[in-house]
Amino acid sequence: MEKIDKNLLGIPEPTLRRIPKYIDLLKRLKSSKIKYISSKIIADKLNLDSIQVRKDLAITGTIGKPKMGFELDELLTALIHTLNWDNLNDAFLVGAGSLGSALIGYKGFASCGLNIVAAFDSDVKKVGTLVNEIEILPVDKLTDMIKRMHINIGILTVPEDEAQATADEMVEAGISAIWNFAPAHLKLPKEIIVENAQLTQSLGVLTHKLAKKLNSEIAPINNFKKF
Amino acid sequence: MEKIDKNLLGIPEPTLRRIPKYIDLLKRLKSSKIKYISSKIIADKLNLDSIQVRKDLAITGTIGKPKMGFELDELLTALIHTLNWDNLNDAFLVGAGSLGSALIGYKGFASCGLNIVAAFDSDVKKVGTLVNEIEILPVDKLTDMIKRMHINIGILTVPEDEAQATADEMVEAGISAIWNFAPAHLKLPKEIIVENAQLTQSLGVLTHKLAKKLNSEIAPINNFKKF
Repeated sequence: MEKIDKNLLGIPEPTLRRIPKYIDLLKRLKSSKIKYISSKIIADKLNLDSIQVRKDLAITGTIGKPKMGFELDELLTALIHTLNWDNLNDAFLVGAGSLGSALIGYKGFASCGLNIVAAFDSDVKKVGTLVNEIEILPVDKLTDMIKRMHINIGILTVPEDEAQATADEMVEAGISAIWNFAPAHLKLPKEIIVENAQLTQSLGVLTHKLAKKLNSEIAPINNFKKF
Repeated sequence: MEKIDKNLLGIPEPTLRRIPKYIDLLKRLKSSKIKYISSKIIADKLNLDSIQVRKDLAITGTIGKPKMGFELDELLTALIHTLNWDNLNDAFLVGAGSLGSALIGYKGFASCGLNIVAAFDSDVKKVGTLVNEIEILPVDKLTDMIKRMHINIGILTVPEDEAQATADEMVEAGISAIWNFAPAHLKLPKEIIVENAQLTQSLGVLTHKLAKKLNSEIAPINNFKKF
């Protein structure tokens, strides 16, 4: 029964976020000609809890052999399949500024199931130029092309004040999932998958910890409460 | 007593990751001339649990007024202070590829306490060129300049196979915190703050959910276990 529930509920997000780490590690080990691997060794190499790793790997359905562990190739294939990274998903990117251009040119996405097939911008000076061999198209063609090409993923790298309107347009045209790099909180229908790239969230953790470490001016909570 | 414990333990990471969202929202509301805000309204606008939001905001030490809520400016200032975003932290970036160049040119970092003061690359063709008015320096100057300028933050945008060696060099020279964009798991001394930017983690969640939504080829867990 437990298996059925898990399936219905889907894979927990923290597990999904660890899977790319497992994939990275297994690819590196594979290039070192390693054939079998245990969850204990994976946990050690990634500084994770080994019970957690065992649970995560169980989700793929791969079964390890006693004393030998998992067959590395089989486990890697199953992990890649779990994220659907064995399929290429076509995506449109809107906002060909510096971050957008970097994403267009990022070669690592192909192994993560992502294929940026076209990019759009509202700036007439950018339209028609090439960024990493992809021509920047005018944003007023976005709706038509999403419909015509049945695109499911939209990557949003526009400025904050254009984010909601662009996302609305994507959804209206039939996009199912938005990867949002704009510093904006999008209000969209519940069935739309929104994944925020959270650059500034990541940065906030770093700057806070650094300030604490350096004994900077941050007042302790108790003193701070008094002002 | 509880307050002291919280202070000793530090702010939980999930709270730290939500603070940039609060800051974004409050900045937007501020520009609409709103003076007071309740944790309930913040929770509604960000689709968060209102008890969670109240707990998060309590960490800043700001106290709301009955029936009026928090004074918006005071709360915003306290949140920014919690992340130390009211100070500019000088950072060096290593790896001036497309992602590195995008980060150099990203204008949003100044309001997040980050100031990229120099960038380095091992490619002699890149050295000496300007990216968004910052000159790319040869990577063999990295150690000296970190020491000379007392730089605390290193941003790592090198390829995977150069990541560990570059991180080691940063740490050796005195860097306290590394913002890692390389698809590599860094092994560093425990006292070094490492924050992984997790682009592919974010993408994995998206592609998995999309596959599930589209009823794609992903086999249900129960069937998958049999092969």
